[in-house]
Amino acid sequence: MANSRVVGILGGMGPLATADLYRKIIEFTPAHRDQDHLHVIIDADPTVPDRTEALLRGGEDPTPWLVAGGRRLRAAGAAFIVMPCNTAHAFLPRVQPLVEIPFVSMIAEAAREAARRVSPGAPVGILATSGTVAAALYQHELDRLGLRPIVPDRAEQAAVETAINLVKAGEVGPAATDQVLIAARALERDGAAALIAACTELPIVLRQDDVAVPLIDATAELARAAVTAATRGDPVDTAAPAEGDRHAADS
Amino acid sequence: MANSRVVGILGGMGPLATADLYRKIIEFTPAHRDQDHLHVIIDADPTVPDRTEALLRGGEDPTPWLVAGGRRLRAAGAAFIVMPCNTAHAFLPRVQPLVEIPFVSMIAEAAREAARRVSPGAPVGILATSGTVAAALYQHELDRLGLRPIVPDRAEQAAVETAINLVKAGEVGPAATDQVLIAARALERDGAAALIAACTELPIVLRQDDVAVPLIDATAELARAAVTAATRGDPVDTAAPAEGDRHAADS
Repeated sequence: MANSRVVGILGGMGPLATADLYRKIIEFTPAHRDQDHLHVIIDADPTVPDRTEALLRGGEDPTPWLVAGGRRLRAAGAAFIVMPCNTAHAFLPRVQPLVEIPFVSMIAEAAREAARRVSPGAPVGILATSGTVAAALYQHELDRLGLRPIVPDRAEQAAVETAINLVKAGEVGPAATDQVLIAARALERDGAAALIAACTELPIVLRQDDVAVPLIDATAELARAAVTAATRGDPVDTAAPAEGDRHAADS
Repeated sequence: MANSRVVGILGGMGPLATADLYRKIIEFTPAHRDQDHLHVIIDADPTVPDRTEALLRGGEDPTPWLVAGGRRLRAAGAAFIVMPCNTAHAFLPRVQPLVEIPFVSMIAEAAREAARRVSPGAPVGILATSGTVAAALYQHELDRLGLRPIVPDRAEQAAVETAINLVKAGEVGPAATDQVLIAARALERDGAAALIAACTELPIVLRQDDVAVPLIDATAELARAAVTAATRGDPVDTAAPAEGDRHAADS
């Protein structure tokens, strides 16, 4: 698209989620021919260490991989970065000051869509990795917007992890859907007025028709934000650091 | 995947075809977790001028765009390039000498699969853009392998173009399938022992179940070749120039 900005996708976490984001960006771009589409650069390095392992069990810190990928995207011409891995957003406070272009936050975009879809103060269920839940990424953002975050109990959370790992292994059939539905139905029983598919593997196996309340697809919200940021000026709600952080990173 | 080589995808021609190739590479990679997958870098610049327009009607030459994209991929770390646009392969003789890493030819891969699937001398139908047909990309390769290429007549070829343009506009429903089937059924009546979906938009709307003879998906063959090239040493059958061309390009 003429005069649009180049979208950088820092992907590979996992690969199918990256393909899903790219496909949604294409779908949300008003286009009648190839030349109407956005210039997208994807760096999908699946060797980034497991984000949940790093957050919960002292696994290798993925920060250096995320910084290197972000810098490759900038060098290739990207104007901003979208990262189709919710859990990786836990590392953004350290990554962003070391990458000179802004990240658009998937957490902020999905939480804002939740706020549009439910009444103030309503419970919103979070379907995410154990790392995302433990880092309280969505809890903080939903709190900030005046909503009430609720998360699965331990057994239901284990079922969500099973679903995510099936998708990462390429098993995108009903077994994965059944697992995530264990947690989704429990959150509905607990009063969730909406559910957030807050891990990018989940929209691949969980659809609106599978649940009774509005299902917010964080990947789709990030795709919409990417199209807006590429075509209508500065990205909104980026995860850009405060001025002090920038200076610290430069020194 | 440890010790594998980085796959570069020169995409955007069109975007959905690029997403389709990426998804097929993921599917064909033996993997149980993110870290088992390949490192893939995609440069999807949809502003590359229309390849068929350049070949048939004096449209702008896409060569500089393809060279720039190929060089961005190399700079980002790609070891070789796959290009999910059959028509763009017509420009490879000029592009390859100016990009320092090899392109794996989708034409060679798809034609070789056709040779595996039919008897020597058998007619093979080509479903492609008018640019690919006019440049005789598949005709030459099939001839070389001892097969008999057949192409749609003018009206049927127009239906193929209609199908391709529907996909490029995001219309991936039965209307596009019906159009390409006009040509596919005519080629079957003309004796085709196999059909090649030789435009990367076509596998998105034409499946094996839609036709009576083996359907060769050029995108899938390119995806298999990319996985092989990334994991098992040097890519085979690249579109690398002859030694003389290299010297000419270096001078």
